[in-house]
Amino acid sequence: MTVRVGVLGCGVVGTEVIRLLTTQAADLEARAGARLELVGVAVRSLETPRDPVVDRALLTTDAEALVDRADVVVELMGGLEPARSLLLRAIERGAAVVTANKALLGADGPTLYAAADAAGVDLYFEAAVAGAIPLVRPVRESLAGDAVTRVLGIVNGTTNYVLDQMATTGADLDVAVKQAQELGYAEADPTADVAGFDAAAKAAILASLAFHTRVSVDQVHREGIGAVTAEDVAWAAETGYVIKLLAVAERVAATADHPQGVVVRVHPALVPSGHPLAGVRQAFNAVFVEADAAGELMFYGRGAGGRPTASAVLGDVVTVARHRVRGGRGPIESRYADLPVLDVGAAPTRYQVRMRVADRPGVLATVAAVFAEHGVSIEAVRQADGDDTADLLVVTHLAPESALAGTVEALGHLDAVHGVLSVLRVEGA
Amino acid sequence: MTVRVGVLGCGVVGTEVIRLLTTQAADLEARAGARLELVGVAVRSLETPRDPVVDRALLTTDAEALVDRADVVVELMGGLEPARSLLLRAIERGAAVVTANKALLGADGPTLYAAADAAGVDLYFEAAVAGAIPLVRPVRESLAGDAVTRVLGIVNGTTNYVLDQMATTGADLDVAVKQAQELGYAEADPTADVAGFDAAAKAAILASLAFHTRVSVDQVHREGIGAVTAEDVAWAAETGYVIKLLAVAERVAATADHPQGVVVRVHPALVPSGHPLAGVRQAFNAVFVEADAAGELMFYGRGAGGRPTASAVLGDVVTVARHRVRGGRGPIESRYADLPVLDVGAAPTRYQVRMRVADRPGVLATVAAVFAEHGVSIEAVRQADGDDTADLLVVTHLAPESALAGTVEALGHLDAVHGVLSVLRVEGA
Repeated sequence: MTVRVGVLGCGVVGTEVIRLLTTQAADLEARAGARLELVGVAVRSLETPRDPVVDRALLTTDAEALVDRADVVVELMGGLEPARSLLLRAIERGAAVVTANKALLGADGPTLYAAADAAGVDLYFEAAVAGAIPLVRPVRESLAGDAVTRVLGIVNGTTNYVLDQMATTGADLDVAVKQAQELGYAEADPTADVAGFDAAAKAAILASLAFHTRVSVDQVHREGIGAVTAEDVAWAAETGYVIKLLAVAERVAATADHPQGVVVRVHPALVPSGHPLAGVRQAFNAVFVEADAAGELMFYGRGAGGRPTASAVLGDVVTVARHRVRGGRGPIESRYADLPVLDVGAAPTRYQVRMRVADRPGVLATVAAVFAEHGVSIEAVRQADGDDTADLLVVTHLAPESALAGTVEALGHLDAVHGVLSVLRVEGA
Repeated sequence: MTVRVGVLGCGVVGTEVIRLLTTQAADLEARAGARLELVGVAVRSLETPRDPVVDRALLTTDAEALVDRADVVVELMGGLEPARSLLLRAIERGAAVVTANKALLGADGPTLYAAADAAGVDLYFEAAVAGAIPLVRPVRESLAGDAVTRVLGIVNGTTNYVLDQMATTGADLDVAVKQAQELGYAEADPTADVAGFDAAAKAAILASLAFHTRVSVDQVHREGIGAVTAEDVAWAAETGYVIKLLAVAERVAATADHPQGVVVRVHPALVPSGHPLAGVRQAFNAVFVEADAAGELMFYGRGAGGRPTASAVLGDVVTVARHRVRGGRGPIESRYADLPVLDVGAAPTRYQVRMRVADRPGVLATVAAVFAEHGVSIEAVRQADGDDTADLLVVTHLAPESALAGTVEALGHLDAVHGVLSVLRVEGA
């Protein structure tokens, strides 16, 4: 038996997928129970130079025709269009689809899920979240009998590399971004990574799976690392933390202000330097999943790059090919819980607030009173005296984001506070 | 639609599986696409006190009759018999089976796989390896398109707890084992854990999946932690290591002495204190999986305990129930690679050898010559002078286990060596 595989896109990941399909053909056939025949590779230009592993006779600019003759369509073009239309076409024609397209899934996953469900075909996307790290399968299959309470992790390798460089060399953000670009970790236009769009799309996908609830990228509170300064990084180290761009998706209990729901957010955060996430270096990813019965699980590995991403893609291709051969289908969209996606204000977090204050008696009492008025309790205070001003650092206990944000706003109105220098959330403590 | 679930065994894990089936019934139904009806719980005695979550009306001592009326049989009895006969009976009658029985799978997995394959039913066993940590599914599905080169990890929580206690308190092995027993981490008879049988069974299962090759527990080189002394633990700390009981399964290239093959081993090893495995505390588990394309992946979480194990069991139950509802089957045994399982002598490793030697000039040269004769190169030497003897510590570079073992034997015959005090392998460096 033969399963015809069409690959859409021949960039870094596409090339590595083709390499694995070619060099591991005998192994893949034994594992899938069918020969995986690469029937075509859709590209924008036939002239672009390609890695020698890519058989130029298989290249085509007619992606639609390729989709129509494939049993399995592997979409590695990225972006919303024409990827969406091609995947929908593949699904309608009964092909199984494998995609690494987090932007599309985060923005419009339900359209694809619904089409796949209606057509009775597989939709797999392990490579869309955290590259080579098996995370989609564990969350939507292994934990299907458990109640996930929280997903917290580093899901963007580019920003982790940038923040790691800033922490180890003291570099400014733009210098570190340039280094990341030189090493191929960051795109020429680094916005999708630096502004947190990529992490937000992944967070939306993970939240949807973990909480059986549709979450789109628009519902993810997103702050990138653009405002993180070398001074922030130095202060973090000074106070025992490392700054990481975190994706957090969690179930939040009902309060007087909101029902039970889910909050999904991406933002830089202070992570205690002894926490396993603090030790995630370079462009690696790591994700904690907390569930009622399983407790805390951690998954770690390469979150990007051609070969790691290709590994995840091929795992999905073998799985959907097995289904072609032996019948059956993988999991479909699970959205039965349909929890409200709450505003970030409902998220429980902690703040580290650094502010310049007048250096006179009574200032700490005034500042502390503002925290108390907002129902925020203080864990630690540290004061560094200057001449007639002092730098005051306050770390809070856990409180709702809305109360913390309200506190910071009120602090800005105090005469004794000359300026709020930085506000960073503390996670993992 | 209803899927009838029969549970064999009502110990700690069985009770938690019943609790999840009962308290999460609505969620499980939504996820599986069918109501999961607990139709019976097979026990040895109807009189034993049970947790109130267990409906006594469901208890039965007639396990065979229960198997005959279940669509999904969950085996949590442990041990070889009657677990094997009951699982085979379930499979022959067309039931899907979920088991956490590593001893049975490690000793006689192929009999079960063959039966499940012949009958066309699912055989799932996520809970048999590393408890709640999704490891079976990632290795046999997510990595199905990649070539695994090595699996290395801590897969036995009991011995990790014992070694962690020894490291943090300086206790002797038997004291630490008693503490583990008092806390419920170790059985009254701790042999299966302490002697490495449990880890060896898990290593056999993981190796079979990772290398598409049948590996039985008899083919696993096994050394337990019974010989690890407080002095070894202290020396490890002194030299920058932590002692862990590791399970290692790896692909070894062909040499003049042996063909390409797989070596699977369980033994205490020195892990550099900065390595993530060194930081695995208490009864947690962590496993590294290295693959050609994916690179290094790590999985971390609770490797034992009623609730974590029940989480893994229920994930499998939902998966096999989905297959009942919507057709299809999970992966079957993949043994096509059929690599030879080689003797431990073929494993590449490093030794730390601590020996008492005569304190006179020329001893180091004599000792070093023995290493050189066996083709083993030395990475570091450390010597602590006594009165007329000295303690000499040698750490080697990577060499075949057989060459290292041969070196140690030859050292024992040297006049200058008064005794070999300890020999530990170094991994993860």
